[in-house]
Amino acid sequence: MKLTPDWVVGFVDGEGCFHVSLTRHPEMTAGYQVLAEFVVVQHKRDVAVLHALKRFFGHGVVRPNHGERYAYRVRDLDGLAKICDFFLRHPLKTRKNVDFRKFRRIVFLMQQGEHLSRSGLLRIIRLAETMNTQDRPALRQIRQELQSSLSRGKE
Amino acid sequence: MKLTPDWVVGFVDGEGCFHVSLTRHPEMTAGYQVLAEFVVVQHKRDVAVLHALKRFFGHGVVRPNHGERYAYRVRDLDGLAKICDFFLRHPLKTRKNVDFRKFRRIVFLMQQGEHLSRSGLLRIIRLAETMNTQDRPALRQIRQELQSSLSRGKE
Repeated sequence: MKLTPDWVVGFVDGEGCFHVSLTRHPEMTAGYQVLAEFVVVQHKRDVAVLHALKRFFGHGVVRPNHGERYAYRVRDLDGLAKICDFFLRHPLKTRKNVDFRKFRRIVFLMQQGEHLSRSGLLRIIRLAETMNTQDRPALRQIRQELQSSLSRGKE
Repeated sequence: MKLTPDWVVGFVDGEGCFHVSLTRHPEMTAGYQVLAEFVVVQHKRDVAVLHALKRFFGHGVVRPNHGERYAYRVRDLDGLAKICDFFLRHPLKTRKNVDFRKFRRIVFLMQQGEHLSRSGLLRIIRLAETMNTQDRPALRQIRQELQSSLSRGKE
């Protein structure tokens, strides 16, 4: 299956997700690890489309997700940078483009190593909290913890 | 917003639906009215994309759907014929293409007036029952009614 850029934009406008989450990671300076990922989920009958996306971007993995669904995920920074470059040249047409632009800023901050300091991590969380539509209580809690540790003078 | 054919295919691969249902309609010869429709549903924040699809195909309406969602629907036979022609020239890449091909046969049968006779309606229902993945008990029931009325010699 050969994909064209416009088809990929249309399909991701419908089915793609730019997602940022944090996991507690005591060994890291900032205490948390940032997980930025680009995800497309499909029923297993369309796993071929996910493999075609993987070939198109040249990064990421296709793995079983919940139930009868499979997910194409890109998490490595090189792959995410390539994906950001693609969607900058070929803009999404839905409001997902707003999330994408925040996601791209987060990937850029991570490329600069900002996620390794508390203050940089705080910038990333503030951006992530305004992404997607749902409330993110876990992010809010981590932000509040970081804000208070920074106000106590810890970098 | 200007859409390209490939973007439309990608977006419909993700978000589009080809749907056929029947409503009881005692005044019609066959006793039922066939409703074939092409539908794309989006959250209201992306209603602009639905209007762009309407302009792209030159048919259909954009209306509120459930809750905060809007739907672009095409139900008129001329519009459906145009949409079928488009997706024949620009094939869907997901398994939705299998449903589309059955949908296209149903639209063709309706263009021939087959939905106005019991035997034609039965052919349409048999095709519709194999579309989409969910079980369609209402279609099954109507098919069984038609089968028994046809076996009693009614056309």
